[in-house]
Amino acid sequence: MSHLYKLYTNKSCPFVHRALIVIEEKKLASAIEEVFIDLTDMPKWYAEINPMETVPTLEVLHPSDAVKPHLNNGKYVYESQLIAEYLDSVSEPKEQLHGRNAKENHKVQFVSEASDLISAGYGLLRDPFNKEKRKAVEDNAAYLNRILEEGQTEEEGPFVCGSYFTLADIAITPFLIRFDALLRYYAGVDVFYQAPALRRLFLAAKKRPSVVATSLTPAEYISIYANYLPESHPWRGAVTGTEGIKPVLFYNPLSSFSDRVRLLLTTLPQVKAHLVEVDYKEVGGWYAQVNYRQTVPALLSGGERPSAVHESWPILLFLSQEYGQWAALSAEERYAMEFFNTKTQEFSTAMVRVLKQSNPSADDWEYFFWAAEEVVKELTARNAGQPAHVFHGKAELNLADFSFLPFLVRAHATLELLTEGKHDNIFEKFPILNQYLEKALAKPEIKSVFLDPSKYLTRFKTLRSQSN
Amino acid sequence: MSHLYKLYTNKSCPFVHRALIVIEEKKLASAIEEVFIDLTDMPKWYAEINPMETVPTLEVLHPSDAVKPHLNNGKYVYESQLIAEYLDSVSEPKEQLHGRNAKENHKVQFVSEASDLISAGYGLLRDPFNKEKRKAVEDNAAYLNRILEEGQTEEEGPFVCGSYFTLADIAITPFLIRFDALLRYYAGVDVFYQAPALRRLFLAAKKRPSVVATSLTPAEYISIYANYLPESHPWRGAVTGTEGIKPVLFYNPLSSFSDRVRLLLTTLPQVKAHLVEVDYKEVGGWYAQVNYRQTVPALLSGGERPSAVHESWPILLFLSQEYGQWAALSAEERYAMEFFNTKTQEFSTAMVRVLKQSNPSADDWEYFFWAAEEVVKELTARNAGQPAHVFHGKAELNLADFSFLPFLVRAHATLELLTEGKHDNIFEKFPILNQYLEKALAKPEIKSVFLDPSKYLTRFKTLRSQSN
Amino acid sequence: MSHLYKLYTNKSCPFVHRALIVIEEKKLASAIEEVFIDLTDMPKWYAEINPMETVPTLEVLHPSDAVKPHLNNGKYVYESQLIAEYLDSVSEPKEQLHGRNAKENHKVQFVSEASDLISAGYGLLRDPFNKEKRKAVEDNAAYLNRILEEGQTEEEGPFVCGSYFTLADIAITPFLIRFDALLRYYAGVDVFYQAPALRRLFLAAKKRPSVVATSLTPAEYISIYANYLPESHPWRGAVTGTEGIKPVLFYNPLSSFSDRVRLLLTTLPQVKAHLVEVDYKEVGGWYAQVNYRQTVPALLSGGERPSAVHESWPILLFLSQEYGQWAALSAEERYAMEFFNTKTQEFSTAMVRVLKQSNPSADDWEYFFWAAEEVVKELTARNAGQPAHVFHGKAELNLADFSFLPFLVRAHATLELLTEGKHDNIFEKFPILNQYLEKALAKPEIKSVFLDPSKYLTRFKTLRSQSN
Repeated sequence: MSHLYKLYTNKSCPFVHRALIVIEEKKLASAIEEVFIDLTDMPKWYAEINPMETVPTLEVLHPSDAVKPHLNNGKYVYESQLIAEYLDSVSEPKEQLHGRNAKENHKVQFVSEASDLISAGYGLLRDPFNKEKRKAVEDNAAYLNRILEEGQTEEEGPFVCGSYFTLADIAITPFLIRFDALLRYYAGVDVFYQAPALRRLFLAAKKRPSVVATSLTPAEYISIYANYLPESHPWRGAVTGTEGIKPVLFYNPLSSFSDRVRLLLTTLPQVKAHLVEVDYKEVGGWYAQVNYRQTVPALLSGGERPSAVHESWPILLFLSQEYGQWAALSAEERYAMEFFNTKTQEFSTAMVRVLKQSNPSADDWEYFFWAAEEVVKELTARNAGQPAHVFHGKAELNLADFSFLPFLVRAHATLELLTEGKHDNIFEKFPILNQYLEKALAKPEIKSVFLDPSKYLTRFKTLRSQSN
Repeated sequence: MSHLYKLYTNKSCPFVHRALIVIEEKKLASAIEEVFIDLTDMPKWYAEINPMETVPTLEVLHPSDAVKPHLNNGKYVYESQLIAEYLDSVSEPKEQLHGRNAKENHKVQFVSEASDLISAGYGLLRDPFNKEKRKAVEDNAAYLNRILEEGQTEEEGPFVCGSYFTLADIAITPFLIRFDALLRYYAGVDVFYQAPALRRLFLAAKKRPSVVATSLTPAEYISIYANYLPESHPWRGAVTGTEGIKPVLFYNPLSSFSDRVRLLLTTLPQVKAHLVEVDYKEVGGWYAQVNYRQTVPALLSGGERPSAVHESWPILLFLSQEYGQWAALSAEERYAMEFFNTKTQEFSTAMVRVLKQSNPSADDWEYFFWAAEEVVKELTARNAGQPAHVFHGKAELNLADFSFLPFLVRAHATLELLTEGKHDNIFEKFPILNQYLEKALAKPEIKSVFLDPSKYLTRFKTLRSQSN
Repeated sequence: MSHLYKLYTNKSCPFVHRALIVIEEKKLASAIEEVFIDLTDMPKWYAEINPMETVPTLEVLHPSDAVKPHLNNGKYVYESQLIAEYLDSVSEPKEQLHGRNAKENHKVQFVSEASDLISAGYGLLRDPFNKEKRKAVEDNAAYLNRILEEGQTEEEGPFVCGSYFTLADIAITPFLIRFDALLRYYAGVDVFYQAPALRRLFLAAKKRPSVVATSLTPAEYISIYANYLPESHPWRGAVTGTEGIKPVLFYNPLSSFSDRVRLLLTTLPQVKAHLVEVDYKEVGGWYAQVNYRQTVPALLSGGERPSAVHESWPILLFLSQEYGQWAALSAEERYAMEFFNTKTQEFSTAMVRVLKQSNPSADDWEYFFWAAEEVVKELTARNAGQPAHVFHGKAELNLADFSFLPFLVRAHATLELLTEGKHDNIFEKFPILNQYLEKALAKPEIKSVFLDPSKYLTRFKTLRSQSN
């Protein structure tokens, strides 16, 4: 079959996306020749075809004399939504994607505009930590949600016209797909947070074969739209043309939990993480927009479908599963590391409790020494009969050690607070801890993760004075 | 089979509706003779049967001596919910619509009351723009919603007892159906706005054959309940006994967008629209209750299922589809009008930008002349070789012209602002615009839509002074 | 098949519950010997096996030399979530309950913590009427809900990983089941009030055979956890070891509606209800937490699945259905009582309207006498030809009488207000009311329900003075 139409197209453009979905829904691919238009360097001849210099344009290849007067320059159809309507009107079954009556057609047209949500989405992309622009996205999504819910009084189903998929769904889905990927990645925004009916529409729409076939991956959208961002965006640099999207680690150099991840990264040279330092003063600022938990470390995974990974130990597991040795470990080895991590957690809790108070109670001191002893017991049992080994990973540090070491480093740096001249020095009481620290810091890549010990001491003295 | 019962009935009454649904659910129609009672002129003999003068009443035609002492006057059952319970108890399968245990029976009875929502709904109908009464409806719907959601912890499903349809659903559905139709139409209220579980119940209930068979159309409810409204209700007059429900157009005579619809209506004499003028001062008042977008024009469609239609161009399309020529147009003609409308939108945006500022920028002026030229190009191309024609619709104005003309009229009326004595006069620069205006206003029905030009000039001068 | 593992277990413990669900999901029951550990009297030998003295512990019965170094003491696995992971990892199909990739594994681990909701839930149980603790439960449930909803952007379905059931669902379900039962019963809290996605997860999870098989009844959880409550908890006493859970009646001795239920209870000696007097001053306090309607009476049913029962007449029906004669009554007898109750309601409304105003209108007086006459008509018709009988239940008081009598008692006590020296005395006007009252109060168990009449008079005088 010879082509009936030419479509001037670019898959990255949401307006083109509308036409592409219609073509799939109506099985028109064989009737249409696609002509790729480079949007970053639009060819001059294209302005002859479409003086507005927008994509898509539909060219009717063999217009009859009767239709010529109605088409632009006798053969062109402009404007994505009009192209979508036109293609649906002229192909069989005719108007399948239109509403089934005047009222549905109205709903289709009214929702298809959605222009405020579209503006708000792009506005936020250009200024991703602006609270008002974020609110504009949420408010406009909620507004669209309300329209959807009102409509559901007529008929149930995820789409604008209930179970019936129409040009309205096709009009907004390309934007929902882009905003879900882009705003989640660059601004930490869930577009659907206050819009459950819109979320349901999005989920149902993106499963349709017509949408699957015409969509790029989240990573591709993230790359293509990177130039919308302000230059100063902190992890714009993670999005590279050649190496794909790098994992982004949000960390603070004083944070023990952040150190855990940085220690693991020293063993994963293939992971070229993009590091974003989060000043504690920023925690209430832009970082709260990105991560409403406001904790460091946090990770944005790289790859085709970047997503947020939270909390230090889960991040260690994630990185080890995605890039490291986890798959090769037996169930028992995994268990041993996870169990040691629970002891590490108790040690850190107990230590911080003592460090933060100017006058810890007897219970607090007791808890601290008990927690230290629990850790020591585990390390001793693990290395029984192997005097040269001290780590949980025996000769080499493993994930469990990366979990523990940051706290041991701080314990050593803050010894004057942890003894107060009258309590046991855990490094004397448990010599294996001393050996552990020395052996670990003897490795330059390990040592490089840490600050000068005086920094930790100062930090905890400040925290102690603040908590009084 | 001879009848076992008489039901004194009136399909419009929600209390009767309960009994009718039970009769359908239990397939009792052949056992029951229905006796119609005119509620607006209740027969005197009916007070003998039911001294409370309420419908429904159930008459047991052949009561045994054993049951007589328990029935009123030995044979009557009063109160809709008690009639529903009774019919369900005496017909096979017995108590099918009751709860399945004491707890469900409790839930059924507790929800069946719902008396606060019922009072609130009627209260709002009597005073449709009262914010407190509106809030009372929303709060009571939310309260019922909460009860439904709490219940769902036991069993999933849309109904009060999960997937099991009971007298509770039957008790409230007649009111939900009426309030959805009436409050949406007369007060712009979506009863289910803050009540998703109640919406789900409503949707599932109104699909049941028993409910479908016993319900009137929204238009019928709207007509029957019109006398609940205050005399002053602005579109009470749209609800007529003989001509059904007319479309209601909310407009303002100064609004260009409103004029679009009024122009179309001059060509649709069969549409006897009810016009409601919205004073701009009312936009924050009762009109905000009706249309939370607060824009004019807005349309309430007439017909069997009136619904809101928003935004001027979508209203034009809706009216043309419902009452006009749209169906007869080719896909290409439709495209041409829709495309011209996009140019009209740009012209209006550009014009208003210049008119509203006391000192428009060079860019604003350039944009205005470019937009005018775009319109002119289209009109010229459409009428090439036909010097007698100037409209987009050639000899006659079409939808696209109705979209454009209101702005051209205002451009002419405000020429002193649009030239400021130093910029081009678009009517001189593009003579076709002059011809267009003259030819259009030569038609008396067209001219009658517009105000004296000085009114538009005053309006924009005021807007300009306010925007400084 | 000989056992491969021992599980030290106690079905009441939510942490053990996680392991038990895994065992069911993976069909491991035949491989595991369960050893019951009494948590209220933990055996000393168990501290040897698990020095942390927590359940569950998993013992690997035949550990190979290769795995011994990784297990505690060469054969033990500690910590419920690690046991769940371990069992899933070593049994076929391996890792069926893990996530399907690193990202899902992260989500599983992140949600499995949910430690803030767990702490908040137990915190509220220990202090059930503390508003801040209640808010902490709601906020943490809403937080988890948000995580679930964010996740749904990837895949629909009720669980943490969409339709795929994982260790994350297994981790939180035991707590959701307990909190739903415990907090609803002891604190009147619906954990899922602001968390619809979490509710959906809960409903889907608790239907799974693995969860059904391993869960106790709500009543069992309520009994087991009773010792978490403060000593002062008002209906802790309803939870007994030997007699199960008694119904709890919240009442006030001045409340006519409360009296209805207390009258019925005099005829149901087998129902050993636990009575909680609600001081009217507490209505805004702890009682508002329990019953957001803030009305008395309210009932918490006993039995296996206690639930709230509201409003006096529905409570009468519930108790009669659950413990009394309801099932034995004909549909007509039930109707007669329910119809009389509607007359009782009108009598009480009319009477209170007169009593509360210092200057009731002529309409109010007329309504009162009409309502009294309606009641009298019914009583007279019921007892026609049986001069010895006066009650609706003829010789004995029935449910309808329990509904009426509290108001008649108050009418008699407040006669000076109900005549004001110039209006009819209804006990003189309708002698049957006098007989009714005398015969009823002649029964000592009936009389014992009421206060000295002067108390009612004082109460209504106070209300009248307040309403002016």
